[in-house]
Amino acid sequence: MQQQAQIAVLGVTGYAGAELARLLLRHPRLAGASPLFLGREGSARESLTAIHPQLAGLSQDQLCVEPFSWDLLTSRGVKVLFLATPHEQSRKLAPEALSRGLRIIDLSGAWRLNDSANRAVYKFSDEASLAATKAQSQSVYGLPELHRGDIAKAQLVANPGCYATSIILALKPMVAAGWVDINRGIVCDAKSGVSGAGKEPTAKTHFMHAADNLSAYGVFGHRHTGELLEQLNLPSDAITFTPHLLPIPRGILATIYVTLREKRTAEEIETCLRGFYIDSPMVRIHAAGHLPHIQHVVRTNFCDLGFQLAPDGRRCIVISCLDNLLKGAAGQAVQNLNVMNGWQETEGLL
Amino acid sequence: MQQQAQIAVLGVTGYAGAELARLLLRHPRLAGASPLFLGREGSARESLTAIHPQLAGLSQDQLCVEPFSWDLLTSRGVKVLFLATPHEQSRKLAPEALSRGLRIIDLSGAWRLNDSANRAVYKFSDEASLAATKAQSQSVYGLPELHRGDIAKAQLVANPGCYATSIILALKPMVAAGWVDINRGIVCDAKSGVSGAGKEPTAKTHFMHAADNLSAYGVFGHRHTGELLEQLNLPSDAITFTPHLLPIPRGILATIYVTLREKRTAEEIETCLRGFYIDSPMVRIHAAGHLPHIQHVVRTNFCDLGFQLAPDGRRCIVISCLDNLLKGAAGQAVQNLNVMNGWQETEGLL
Amino acid sequence: MQQQAQIAVLGVTGYAGAELARLLLRHPRLAGASPLFLGREGSARESLTAIHPQLAGLSQDQLCVEPFSWDLLTSRGVKVLFLATPHEQSRKLAPEALSRGLRIIDLSGAWRLNDSANRAVYKFSDEASLAATKAQSQSVYGLPELHRGDIAKAQLVANPGCYATSIILALKPMVAAGWVDINRGIVCDAKSGVSGAGKEPTAKTHFMHAADNLSAYGVFGHRHTGELLEQLNLPSDAITFTPHLLPIPRGILATIYVTLREKRTAEEIETCLRGFYIDSPMVRIHAAGHLPHIQHVVRTNFCDLGFQLAPDGRRCIVISCLDNLLKGAAGQAVQNLNVMNGWQETEGLL
Amino acid sequence: MQQQAQIAVLGVTGYAGAELARLLLRHPRLAGASPLFLGREGSARESLTAIHPQLAGLSQDQLCVEPFSWDLLTSRGVKVLFLATPHEQSRKLAPEALSRGLRIIDLSGAWRLNDSANRAVYKFSDEASLAATKAQSQSVYGLPELHRGDIAKAQLVANPGCYATSIILALKPMVAAGWVDINRGIVCDAKSGVSGAGKEPTAKTHFMHAADNLSAYGVFGHRHTGELLEQLNLPSDAITFTPHLLPIPRGILATIYVTLREKRTAEEIETCLRGFYIDSPMVRIHAAGHLPHIQHVVRTNFCDLGFQLAPDGRRCIVISCLDNLLKGAAGQAVQNLNVMNGWQETEGLL
Repeated sequence: MQQQAQIAVLGVTGYAGAELARLLLRHPRLAGASPLFLGREGSARESLTAIHPQLAGLSQDQLCVEPFSWDLLTSRGVKVLFLATPHEQSRKLAPEALSRGLRIIDLSGAWRLNDSANRAVYKFSDEASLAATKAQSQSVYGLPELHRGDIAKAQLVANPGCYATSIILALKPMVAAGWVDINRGIVCDAKSGVSGAGKEPTAKTHFMHAADNLSAYGVFGHRHTGELLEQLNLPSDAITFTPHLLPIPRGILATIYVTLREKRTAEEIETCLRGFYIDSPMVRIHAAGHLPHIQHVVRTNFCDLGFQLAPDGRRCIVISCLDNLLKGAAGQAVQNLNVMNGWQETEGLL
Repeated sequence: MQQQAQIAVLGVTGYAGAELARLLLRHPRLAGASPLFLGREGSARESLTAIHPQLAGLSQDQLCVEPFSWDLLTSRGVKVLFLATPHEQSRKLAPEALSRGLRIIDLSGAWRLNDSANRAVYKFSDEASLAATKAQSQSVYGLPELHRGDIAKAQLVANPGCYATSIILALKPMVAAGWVDINRGIVCDAKSGVSGAGKEPTAKTHFMHAADNLSAYGVFGHRHTGELLEQLNLPSDAITFTPHLLPIPRGILATIYVTLREKRTAEEIETCLRGFYIDSPMVRIHAAGHLPHIQHVVRTNFCDLGFQLAPDGRRCIVISCLDNLLKGAAGQAVQNLNVMNGWQETEGLL
Repeated sequence: MQQQAQIAVLGVTGYAGAELARLLLRHPRLAGASPLFLGREGSARESLTAIHPQLAGLSQDQLCVEPFSWDLLTSRGVKVLFLATPHEQSRKLAPEALSRGLRIIDLSGAWRLNDSANRAVYKFSDEASLAATKAQSQSVYGLPELHRGDIAKAQLVANPGCYATSIILALKPMVAAGWVDINRGIVCDAKSGVSGAGKEPTAKTHFMHAADNLSAYGVFGHRHTGELLEQLNLPSDAITFTPHLLPIPRGILATIYVTLREKRTAEEIETCLRGFYIDSPMVRIHAAGHLPHIQHVVRTNFCDLGFQLAPDGRRCIVISCLDNLLKGAAGQAVQNLNVMNGWQETEGLL
Repeated sequence: MQQQAQIAVLGVTGYAGAELARLLLRHPRLAGASPLFLGREGSARESLTAIHPQLAGLSQDQLCVEPFSWDLLTSRGVKVLFLATPHEQSRKLAPEALSRGLRIIDLSGAWRLNDSANRAVYKFSDEASLAATKAQSQSVYGLPELHRGDIAKAQLVANPGCYATSIILALKPMVAAGWVDINRGIVCDAKSGVSGAGKEPTAKTHFMHAADNLSAYGVFGHRHTGELLEQLNLPSDAITFTPHLLPIPRGILATIYVTLREKRTAEEIETCLRGFYIDSPMVRIHAAGHLPHIQHVVRTNFCDLGFQLAPDGRRCIVISCLDNLLKGAAGQAVQNLNVMNGWQETEGLL
């Protein structure tokens, strides 16, 4: 008798997909039931370890990637479907999956934005369709630290962007407290490792371009900007967000500059941050003046936050670090799975 | 008969010293007269290529580092003395060298700052001495793009800090034009390769810490801040400057965020930058929206400037790149030597 | 009531110590009983996460490093003591620990070599002592793939060197089968990441020296050579072993050149390797012509072996890859712990 | 009147082409006459600095890449043509260029091999043609240290492969002296930076694959093997050559293992090497036991050689380092240009 899979993953060929497979194969709640790995409709069955040799030995099963079909999902009893697919594919698949009663965790940008003005940058081909509008209305932004309750009940979880996660977690406590002088503008200078640029070999991801280099890109136009505006409830010119390509495989460090409306002490700020995340085990707050490094978080699902206050008590720098493939993608997706199932939020993630 | 050296270099053991030696050995105006390389007083004579194997073969002479003495400088006819020494040593040597009629190019932070409040961060042991006060009054800030005329006549040139060079060159044109809204604050998010942290093996420069990592340091307290304030004529809280340690050997990229007092077009900004540097061959201006990378400038003496303007016409990001050991140290020192001698500013630097 | 520790670790400040702490904190057989972490005698109690910030959040306990004392070991009921200490310290501690009935897994080079000629390179201060001779006679070389049975019963396990593990695992099957022409010599060209050079900041481990570089070291004199000779039962000039320092944090790749006594086919060689490791889950054999990369094994406890045979059927190249901090140190130590306790060899290591 | 170019370069889009352009633009003998840069027939005229931004500012001319045509070569008075083109294109162009009286320096593998068995690996489409046979018979292997006299008179110079240069220079002195025991086999374990893999973005050159990794490739089948055999006059199974891909931008280090026919001293070997290269300024011999690093040679045209002898006096390891884009490609091509013109061999290369 075929073992029943409760979980399926569509799209495991990329970097986030590989991490997702690894996390699910090791997840204590899924022991004894390997997830169902799916490729594109019509694609041939292939071995998972041929695609990702580093996954060899993690499971006793012969792990395979099966061609996608709705029937296969049904016959294998799938309840939760991870979509690690390009935006357009997620737009197409999610409404159908919803109608079949599946719960979805989508890692793409397809369902993250409520405001059509913010969505414009994606140029979705089905922007105006009824199915998409309905799916969007059901979608919950999958940042457990902000939307834990809604995620627990959600049918469609839109897993946040990696940059967006790092910046929203850093800013939310002080913005929500009304401490930040929005009129002075917020600068988010963010730096990401090369895995964030995807697995496609391009001039940009060529070792000779990426190594021993640093470059800014997507200035005043990066797709994650809309997530910042919606989740922080800010007007469109309040945030200046500049991503940079770092010569490292993985990790994000965002240096965030805010001006406070009133003079504050380091103690007040630390208390604000710690209080906000008191029930969030995947956010670690550093003591004032102890700034996190990328190495502290790489290959973990933690987001580390540190800050330093200027002697004037008004200018504050917050440093936020996370692993773009884990807390910025696959790890956060598993964290959402835990929340959706009522499991401990950290299960399979420590 | 001993060949006469016109040039001496004190301190060639560090990274900037090695670059300075290389540049001077190749300098067309110095062909046939190797510079005199000097070590600490009382140190033993040693081979330059034993210290820096990569300099082997650059000269037909057996290159040696001689123990320092004033007599040796006199007997070898030295006219210009480069000090690639720690701050305190430069504070001690420069007044004496001035009194002996030598012209000095000092690569340390000893003589860069006119305002004693800004100098406080260095804690100079001779802060209040007459000799130091007199030397400081003769000192010219060695950024040729700003002070070419004064450098040409100077006895003591204070070669700028690497971060300071990158940021001042980026900001000066628009600040001088009165375009920048100082009240909104200027954010300088700068990133430097590890050579900027010096040759001393430390926990910070250990490969295991520096590689695959990014970290901020010196937040609200870096020594180069005073140079920014003095050269840009800004109040002390107008600039927020955050250095980061990049996992690359050399190169600086500074991402600089300004708000303009009035709406401007990209053409206006490009014209402003090009006009300011029209006679400065070592600054290269990129067309609007074409941002420089660190790789464009590594192992050159160029500072590359690019910018991008927000759709609102008010928020402007300037990217500035240079090689911290060349335009940020040894290359700029040679550029100053050229200016002091009335030679072409780019000689020996292309 | 104080929770009882069955396991203690002495020396967690280095890279292997950090990995060992991480593995033991996650080990399923040790759930609910954090190991006892120990520092030098007389050292102050300090927080483990202050030393290794990346371990934060892995345990609910406040993890501390306690000053070492034998009484503390007794009072906490310690049965197995890991020594992640320098050679000389292991030489001093192990005999005493044995006399107190502890089982020891020593990660240093103190007890790996039976032949005093091979030990000479270590210049042990107690080379001729009775206690050391007795301890050495009890010592088992901790390579489970070769000595599983002896390790299960051992009081003192000498965890192998990282290079030695990679080379012995690659060569043992064909050498044991008598296939290798010893007279033609075996060349082992091995390359290791910088963590192998230790945490001490030195000129060699400085980012500026290690990055963008490659260098050979320890030629004809590396300490792991004796392990190769003893474990492979070879005369002293049969192996030429050259380590190189790779510009990466971790991982070893050894390229091993043997000449076969008789012409063989790729199928025969693959069969020989697979047969030898059929009960060894931590060794993965690649199909003929599919050579392993360092990335396949980094952050795993696997040793990956691949090979390619020349068209002449006599010259064979074996490529062996492992993570020097895991299968080359801490992971192998935990594998030995598993064997000593009769647990599954892979527990806590997948 | 159009300034006359004596030199033309066909193919400057790759890494070696960029280095070649840089060297020629700075070459003291070519001052005042920029080389003629040529693209494919029919391609549009484009700016050289658009292709290689790091070349900006090196020349007062507006540097352009012109569409290739024979007429343009004639009208611009070209005497020497560099071919930095793929093998097949060089096979097609060189015979025609020869018939027009041009002297050629070809950087591809098209004309390096005299033995058709060695050429087989290239699968040249015109292998049997008369034109190719005639061109090959005129071709001189462009390693000045071995063939200086022939190069001076040559019409067609076949610039050697990068690996081949590093290995031939290391082995030639002792092989020529008859000291090497060929029957014992020579192992050449070579490691190259990623620029050696070309500018095409591929899975292999993707940062995520190349960084933090090491892998062997081309085992028992690399194209440079034939050059080793022909230039060292060895039978086909005497050399085992294994290239590896290093996670660095540029540089080659080859570790070469030979067995000597008779016991030798380190002094004898050092004397042999120094004597062989006494008139070769681009080869630097290190003292016995002082092994070169890649950093010593990167961005230079030097090949550095060092060695270490086993205590048995028979096993000898030679380490050879060079920059694959300079001494391994563009620098060696300029060295050949110097020799062909009777200029100092090092001109424009120090």
